[in-house]
Amino acid sequence: MASAPPTHSVPSGQIHPLRERSLVPVGMATILPEAARHVRRLESQLLAHVNRWGYDEIILPTFEYLDVLAPGLEPELIEKCYQFADRTTGRILLLRPDATAQIARTVAMGMMGSRLPLRLSYRATVFRYEPEHAGRDREIFQVGAELIGADDPTADCEIISLLTECLQRVGLHSFKISLGHVGFFKGLLVRAGLSLEGQKRAEQAAARKDLPRLEEILLQERVTKTFARAILEAPELCGQAEVLARGRELTGNEKPLVQALDRLTKVYQLLCSAGYRDSLFLDLGEFRGFDYYDGVVFDVFADGVGVELGGGGRYDHLIGRFGRNIPSTGFALNVDRLFQGLDLSEKTSEVARVDVLVVAPRAAAKQLVSVAGQVRQSGHRVVQQILSRSGNSLLAAASEAGLRAQADTIIIIDADGTERDQVLVLRQRTQPTTGRSNGRPRVSKKTMSVTDFVLQMRRTRAGRGRAR
Amino acid sequence: MASAPPTHSVPSGQIHPLRERSLVPVGMATILPEAARHVRRLESQLLAHVNRWGYDEIILPTFEYLDVLAPGLEPELIEKCYQFADRTTGRILLLRPDATAQIARTVAMGMMGSRLPLRLSYRATVFRYEPEHAGRDREIFQVGAELIGADDPTADCEIISLLTECLQRVGLHSFKISLGHVGFFKGLLVRAGLSLEGQKRAEQAAARKDLPRLEEILLQERVTKTFARAILEAPELCGQAEVLARGRELTGNEKPLVQALDRLTKVYQLLCSAGYRDSLFLDLGEFRGFDYYDGVVFDVFADGVGVELGGGGRYDHLIGRFGRNIPSTGFALNVDRLFQGLDLSEKTSEVARVDVLVVAPRAAAKQLVSVAGQVRQSGHRVVQQILSRSGNSLLAAASEAGLRAQADTIIIIDADGTERDQVLVLRQRTQPTTGRSNGRPRVSKKTMSVTDFVLQMRRTRAGRGRAR
Repeated sequence: MASAPPTHSVPSGQIHPLRERSLVPVGMATILPEAARHVRRLESQLLAHVNRWGYDEIILPTFEYLDVLAPGLEPELIEKCYQFADRTTGRILLLRPDATAQIARTVAMGMMGSRLPLRLSYRATVFRYEPEHAGRDREIFQVGAELIGADDPTADCEIISLLTECLQRVGLHSFKISLGHVGFFKGLLVRAGLSLEGQKRAEQAAARKDLPRLEEILLQERVTKTFARAILEAPELCGQAEVLARGRELTGNEKPLVQALDRLTKVYQLLCSAGYRDSLFLDLGEFRGFDYYDGVVFDVFADGVGVELGGGGRYDHLIGRFGRNIPSTGFALNVDRLFQGLDLSEKTSEVARVDVLVVAPRAAAKQLVSVAGQVRQSGHRVVQQILSRSGNSLLAAASEAGLRAQADTIIIIDADGTERDQVLVLRQRTQPTTGRSNGRPRVSKKTMSVTDFVLQMRRTRAGRGRAR
Repeated sequence: MASAPPTHSVPSGQIHPLRERSLVPVGMATILPEAARHVRRLESQLLAHVNRWGYDEIILPTFEYLDVLAPGLEPELIEKCYQFADRTTGRILLLRPDATAQIARTVAMGMMGSRLPLRLSYRATVFRYEPEHAGRDREIFQVGAELIGADDPTADCEIISLLTECLQRVGLHSFKISLGHVGFFKGLLVRAGLSLEGQKRAEQAAARKDLPRLEEILLQERVTKTFARAILEAPELCGQAEVLARGRELTGNEKPLVQALDRLTKVYQLLCSAGYRDSLFLDLGEFRGFDYYDGVVFDVFADGVGVELGGGGRYDHLIGRFGRNIPSTGFALNVDRLFQGLDLSEKTSEVARVDVLVVAPRAAAKQLVSVAGQVRQSGHRVVQQILSRSGNSLLAAASEAGLRAQADTIIIIDADGTERDQVLVLRQRTQPTTGRSNGRPRVSKKTMSVTDFVLQMRRTRAGRGRAR
C-alpha cells in the first residue's frame, strides 16, 4: 500500500510521455487518494499542533492586487508570479506567491484588531513560476505560523521551538534547523563598503555557499583584504557555540555586527536550554530567499531531501511596508517536501480500505440501503454495492467484490439460505497477520441477524478504539 | 464570541469604504480566525463523513489548460473563468471553475486505474467571475463526492443519502433536497419540437421558475397548445408522490419521458424507504446549472439562505467527453453557504481561546520556555509570554494579560514569594458559569511546584476529555 515519494503524486507532463502536449499544466500535480490521505493528515497534525500553542488559523484570499501586495514582495518574486488582468477592474491580479506578505498586508489593514501579540497560522497554496528543470512544484502547499507584535528573543525562540516540535510530532527524524542572523553578514558587507547591488549579489552567492563567486564580487567591488577575508569566512562558519566565538572576532566591535551576534547568541542559548541543541546548527552565512527578513532566520533540512523543507525568521519591517512597523517572526513548511522527508514506514499506517462491504442483488436494493446505514452507525467505513447476480453465483461475486475493495468483512443480503432480517457474513481475515495461506485470505461464513451483526461491529470498534 | 454569518468574513471592498480602490480583489474574502475555525471544522466533518462511506479524497491541480478541460465545461461557464496565458507554453490556463469536470478529466486519463466503481471526494476552491451585484463569492470553497462507474438507481440513492447524512451530521436543521430528472423536462421540449437554442432558453427559464418568459419562448417556437400546456405545468410540479402521478399523465407514453419518470420514481422510493422522505421534495422542473447532467439531479436548500447550498446529479456522458463514457453521479456543497445556513448556537461551542497562559519576567526567559513546554505536554492550549515587569507589578500585569488572552489559568514564573521550581497559579474562573461578580471574574491564587501543576492539568484534561 505504500507509495514512494517520487510516485505519490502524478507530476504533470509525465502521464502520457508520448503525447506532444501535456494535459496538465507544468509544475502542477494531481495527488491521488493514498498520498492525499497522508498529505491531509500531515496538514491537520501540523495545524492541530500550532493550535495547541495558541495559534489561530486564518484563511486568506487566493488572489491579490499586484499594486497592493507589491511592497511586500521583492522584484525577483514578483517576476515569478502568475499575473493577469482582472476582468472587472482592469487591475493586475496575482496568485499569492507567499503567505507571509499577505498576512502582513492583512494585519496592517487593521483587520485583526489592535491586540498584540497575534498568533496566526495558515494552510495555503502558493503559486510561483519555477524553472522547469529544477523539478519543483509551481503549486506549493504550505503550513505556517506567524507571531506578530513580539520583538523579544523569546519570540524567536517560540517560533523555532514550535517548528521543531511540529517536525517531531509528525514523525520526521534526523532533521536540522540552521540558525543565523541576516544582520551579521549584511553588516560585514556594509562595513566593507559594497554598493547596494554588490551587497545583493554577495548575499545570493553566500546563500548558495558559492565562495569563488563571492570572491569575484568582492574583487569587483574593490573590498580591502581584511574585510574580504571576514566576508569569505562567514559562510563557512557553521556549527555550534564555537561559531559565535569566532564570529565575535570578526565583528571588530562594530555595533550592528555585535548586536546581531548578541541576539543570535541569546536565541541559541534559549533553544539549547529548552532541549533543542541536537537539531540545531548555527550558520553565520544563513540567508532566506526573501528580502523582508531582518533578524534571526532559519531553514529546515532533512536527510534524503535535497532542498530545504521550510524556514522562516524575523521580519520587523515587513508590516511597515503596508502601514506601521510591527516586530514579527514566523515560519512556513512545504508540506510536499516534508512528506518526502518522512519515513515510508510512517506513511503506511492505514491499510484497510474498507471495513465492511454490504452487497445485495438488485431486487433487495431497499434492504441494502437500510443495512449499510445501520452498520455505518457503528462507526465503520462501509461501502454499499448492488451485484447483478443472485442465488448461487451471488456468493462468488460478493467474495470477488470484497477482495477488490480490500474489505475486512462482507455482508450479503438475500443470500441462499438466509431468512428475512438475516444476512450472510463473510470475514476475509480471521487472523490479521497470519490468516493468509496460498496467497488467498482465509474466509469464514456465518449467518446472523442484522441487529446482532451491528452490535458485534460496535464492540469491535470500541475494542480497537479507532478514530478516523 | 459568536460571529453572525454576514460578518464572519471580511468581504473585499468593504474594509475601507472611503478608499477609492479596494485593497482586496472583488468577490474574495479573508476569513478571520473565529470563522476560519468553524469553516475548517465543517470541512473536516464533511470529509470524515464521506470517508466513512468509502469515498477517498483526491487533490486536484488549481490550474487546467483551457483546451484540455473545455470539453467538460459549457460555454457560459468558460466565459466566467479566470484565464491567462501560461508563460512557459503560451497556452491558455484557467483556474478551475468546477471540480467535477476536473475529476472526469482525471478518470478519463486513466490516472485512477480501471477498477470501478470509484468513490472519490474532494475539498477544493473553485473560481468564477460572478456578477458583483449578486454578492456571491468568486472564490468558492467546495466539498464534494463522486460515485463513478455505477449506473444503478441505488447509486443515485447512495449519493443523495450521503449528502443528506452529511447535512444532518454537521447540524443543519430544516433543509430540503429538491429531486428531479433532467430527462423529463428536456423530453417535453424535444417532443414539442423546440429548436436547440429554444430548448436551452426554455430550460433556463424553467430553472428560474420564470413562467411568463417560458410562455414567451414557447410562443416564439410555435409550440402547439397541448405540448405548451404540459411544458408550462412541469416547473410547477413540486411535492411528493402525487407529482409523479401527474407527471405520468403528461408523458403521453413517450418512451424517454416514461423512462425518466421511472428512474426518478425508483430513486425517490429508495430514498423514502431509507427514511429520508421528510427532507425531500420532487420538482419536475428541476435543473442544475451545468449542462453535463443527464439523469436524476438535486439541489439543497436551507431556511435563511436564499440560494442553494449545493447539489449534484448524474452525469453519464461527461467522462466520455474526455474518453469513454462512464456512468457517474455526485454532489458538491458550497461550504460558505452551508456555514451561513447553520444555527449560530452551533457555531459557538468553543469559547476559551487559551487554556493556560505562562508568563515570566525577561530574566526568567529560559524557565518560561521549559515550563510552557511541560504544560503543553498535558495536551492543553498554552501560550507563553514575556512581561516587561517584575516584582510587585508582575502580578497585575499577568492578570491583565490573562484577561486579554481569555485564559482560564495563568502561571507566573519568578513571582514574589515563590521558591525555585515553584510557580504562582492564578485561576480566572473557579465556577465556569457563576464565577463572575461585578463584571470581573473571581480569581484564585496558589503557589505550587511545576510538577504538581502539570499533574493537575493532566487530570483536568483527562476529566474533560476534550480533543482539539
